[in-house]
Amino acid sequence: MKVSKAIITAAGQGQAQLPLQSVVDRSGNVRTAVDLLIDEVVAAGIEEIALVIRPGTAEQYLAAAGSHASKLRFFEQDHPRGYGDALLRARPFADKEPFLHLVSDHLYVSRSGVACAKQLVDVAIRENCSVSAVQPTRENLLAYFGAVGGSPVPRQSGLFEIARVVEKPTPTEAEQKLVVAGQRMGHYLCLFGMHVLAPTIFGLLDSRSASLATDESFNLSDCLDQLARAERYLATELEGVRYDIGEKYGLLIAQLAIALSGEDRNRILSELVELLAKN
Amino acid sequence: MKVSKAIITAAGQGQAQLPLQSVVDRSGNVRTAVDLLIDEVVAAGIEEIALVIRPGTAEQYLAAAGSHASKLRFFEQDHPRGYGDALLRARPFADKEPFLHLVSDHLYVSRSGVACAKQLVDVAIRENCSVSAVQPTRENLLAYFGAVGGSPVPRQSGLFEIARVVEKPTPTEAEQKLVVAGQRMGHYLCLFGMHVLAPTIFGLLDSRSASLATDESFNLSDCLDQLARAERYLATELEGVRYDIGEKYGLLIAQLAIALSGEDRNRILSELVELLAKN
Repeated sequence: MKVSKAIITAAGQGQAQLPLQSVVDRSGNVRTAVDLLIDEVVAAGIEEIALVIRPGTAEQYLAAAGSHASKLRFFEQDHPRGYGDALLRARPFADKEPFLHLVSDHLYVSRSGVACAKQLVDVAIRENCSVSAVQPTRENLLAYFGAVGGSPVPRQSGLFEIARVVEKPTPTEAEQKLVVAGQRMGHYLCLFGMHVLAPTIFGLLDSRSASLATDESFNLSDCLDQLARAERYLATELEGVRYDIGEKYGLLIAQLAIALSGEDRNRILSELVELLAKN
Repeated sequence: MKVSKAIITAAGQGQAQLPLQSVVDRSGNVRTAVDLLIDEVVAAGIEEIALVIRPGTAEQYLAAAGSHASKLRFFEQDHPRGYGDALLRARPFADKEPFLHLVSDHLYVSRSGVACAKQLVDVAIRENCSVSAVQPTRENLLAYFGAVGGSPVPRQSGLFEIARVVEKPTPTEAEQKLVVAGQRMGHYLCLFGMHVLAPTIFGLLDSRSASLATDESFNLSDCLDQLARAERYLATELEGVRYDIGEKYGLLIAQLAIALSGEDRNRILSELVELLAKN
């Protein structure tokens, strides 16, 4: 398996300005969130990137993408039919090959020297199948994520064979369908916003789209659930953390995490102490 | 004296995206920086607001101004001739009356129940003259600010008669011209980015502009220095802090300060502890 393309979806409601927000990166350079996200993708060896956007916003993204602008291709989602439809818009871009997929409203901080996307792509290449990154997540946060059920792959730490994917499950639903052996009590494997997917997913998304009225939305998780029934599909824990910058204070927490893991750590710590002393 | 108009300058290089950045306000609502800044102005009793912007950016500001959009009037700075020229662009808006002036790349956090701009306007009305807000600032930070010299107004805490204004003075220059009685050793009164100015300033800016080649920039501080020689001009310390969001990490520190002074204080404190424990 070779993974040389990535699709980033950035057409969601309220997401329009998100990837364009200023963020200081680990090295202390002022960048945009989308520029950092593309760094992540490029670190995974990706050469071409499709961005699925709201109509008329390509120019903003090109300006925000910095030195990465030449790697971008744009696909517009004309109607707000949801996350599943957004990904389907980029089918012409990667119809025949596996691709890396990221959501645009997350930022990733690796805890090893290797970018999260690179860790994920390495697993996908080694296992030669679709792989979604997951993060053990407390039950009370299930309302924010898609979650997977399945079983640990023997003798492979942090790797799971996916049996089910459920979007924003209730705690009861999670307890019935998504318990994974070896997880801490009350914790579930929630999606990390980062996947390597076989092109099979486009056929599933297309069927789903065709089964609905043209103004009905559909999400990705239902089709990932079908993918798990159709072929081998794994989940992997990464050495890193995702920060949802679409959440209230998400950008603040992401920026703090990036700064505390980077070259300006001491400066930020002393600013924090000063601020806490004053407040 | 009545102050019913405000001028916000937002045409500086690199400032274009700044006021449009997302910030969570004290009540926990996601807003833009420019929307928060206009809150500040409106809290001071201002009814009409002029924004001096780069050509072609009015629409972005209107979208970012939320419910305040109808209060805005736009003046474009066609050529980047500096801060002094930017303010002069709005002369037709407030040629005959005193006005409140704020820079667009600062956010203000009051330490009393009263907004910083309101505190300043109250002083200007009471004293019936131009007043600049100032903040005692350590010598090592002089390179970032304009600073004032002068003498304390007797029996009025935190009020000063301004004799000199110098833009980004060297420590030597500051020691020679800007020592103010009663300040801590090595501290100077630096501009806070917030002024109430008599329309006299426009005449001074105009003369300065006319004395220069049409492509030469000029700052505001030199004309404030002339204002101090022409008429009574005061400086006042406010109960509050300014955060320069144009600085690296400025937005992060401003957001933290706002959150720690607001309704989500406890949530942010616990997120900080969690983050520090992980990093």
